[in-house]
Amino acid sequence: MDPWQECMDYCLVVTRDAGKMIHEALQRDITVMEKSSPVDLVTETDQKVEELIISSIKKKYPTHSFIGEESVAAGSPSILTDNPTWIIDPIDGTTNFVHRFPFVSVSIGFTVNKQIEFGIVYSCLEDKMYSARKGKGAFCNGVPIKVSGQRDITKSLILTEMGFKNDPEHFRITMSNIESLLSVPVHGIRAPGSAAVNMCLVASGAADAYYHIGIHCWDMAGGAAIITEAGGVIMDITGGPFDLMSRRLITASNREIADCIAKKIQQFPCGRDDMEN
Amino acid sequence: MDPWQECMDYCLVVTRDAGKMIHEALQRDITVMEKSSPVDLVTETDQKVEELIISSIKKKYPTHSFIGEESVAAGSPSILTDNPTWIIDPIDGTTNFVHRFPFVSVSIGFTVNKQIEFGIVYSCLEDKMYSARKGKGAFCNGVPIKVSGQRDITKSLILTEMGFKNDPEHFRITMSNIESLLSVPVHGIRAPGSAAVNMCLVASGAADAYYHIGIHCWDMAGGAAIITEAGGVIMDITGGPFDLMSRRLITASNREIADCIAKKIQQFPCGRDDMEN
Repeated sequence: MDPWQECMDYCLVVTRDAGKMIHEALQRDITVMEKSSPVDLVTETDQKVEELIISSIKKKYPTHSFIGEESVAAGSPSILTDNPTWIIDPIDGTTNFVHRFPFVSVSIGFTVNKQIEFGIVYSCLEDKMYSARKGKGAFCNGVPIKVSGQRDITKSLILTEMGFKNDPEHFRITMSNIESLLSVPVHGIRAPGSAAVNMCLVASGAADAYYHIGIHCWDMAGGAAIITEAGGVIMDITGGPFDLMSRRLITASNREIADCIAKKIQQFPCGRDDMEN
Repeated sequence: MDPWQECMDYCLVVTRDAGKMIHEALQRDITVMEKSSPVDLVTETDQKVEELIISSIKKKYPTHSFIGEESVAAGSPSILTDNPTWIIDPIDGTTNFVHRFPFVSVSIGFTVNKQIEFGIVYSCLEDKMYSARKGKGAFCNGVPIKVSGQRDITKSLILTEMGFKNDPEHFRITMSNIESLLSVPVHGIRAPGSAAVNMCLVASGAADAYYHIGIHCWDMAGGAAIITEAGGVIMDITGGPFDLMSRRLITASNREIADCIAKKIQQFPCGRDDMEN
């Protein structure tokens, strides 16, 4: 018996409910609040969707732990333990949500003993439900997905994000990394605006890689299961093992592409998710 | 009687046929060829779809003129005359098409006396048919669309593209323009990879502006009708009147946002579509 399959089945139900709440909110006016900077946005819907997800899961699994983007913003700890843990981004791509730009997702990853057991990402506006259970493959709306298999960086489409950063040096490095990759040259760089969707685009072969410095565990936990089960690689930007709490990510169709990106990009310090509280 | 409505109705039929051909091609292996550089791609499907569109329209309107991306690449003139003219991009977002990245479109604009009479953009993977007849509003899948109405640049989501450029100075300016806008700051910059879809995203309020230096008339002709009819502005990057053959574009929810972008970005010379043959 798979002890965590029941959790995953329940997670799908809860994610659909969350998606429905997001769809309803998109029909109404959206009130926007700022978090750490004028471009770090949150809405009432982010908070309500997270409450819905956590309260639904707590009812069924009262002993489990939670790391949710909005709970952490409100002061909850962001420490990964061995306890079964649900890592939740209620709206990944909040800026997209505010503008009704097509990539907006609910992302949930589930860990036991700090290992990811399954992940679910629902891209609401595209109506695409991505899911993966460890060892059982990755799916989009029930259809198996796999990475592109592209091994040549010059033929690859790469995803990243380029937001405003308070630290001018970090901003300079972010832009310089994009220039460095475009100059290889690669086929192109796209910036869709939802980390979880970016990971699913790589998992389904619609892009060959995605890298990001400054990402959070709730952006990655769902997608990490999906990319791994779709046959892709996920690693630290140094080339070392992936660390969910490290705020750094390269994910790619395969190791060759991931290593090329690791060599081309510069790092900057971004802290850890488990050191901020 | 509207003399061009019949042309528009027929254009919708032809665009659907083109979309069907693209969908079929996405099910098969895609063979990629390079045009002007390793990142300027074309496929057999671009050429076949353009042949389908032009031959279908020629049968019905034998005296009309055509400017098509692939015909121009093959040596046809790219000169806009007063004759009724169909301006065609068979696959806008060829790199996206090659990777099956979600934004791939067919774009057709129709001019008479050098004025755009109607435009149609079909975003194939999203199955969104955007259309606009001069003076009659803009629609997506039959539902009226309008721009966001956002007037504050700091609350705007801006679209552009950032490809490799052979000229290092143009490349430097492209990247520096992105940095300059991100530093305003704005909510975000997205690079979806299809100019025609970008214009439709602004037209439907999912983004507040789109600017591009080096774009072509076949990328803009369909979208120009749609953005105008959706209540947006379209202008040259200097702030002067929009010129379809100028290879330069700012389009936005309104004049305030467009003017802010014009002030923030540097130009570089990119030639004209009607001077290259």
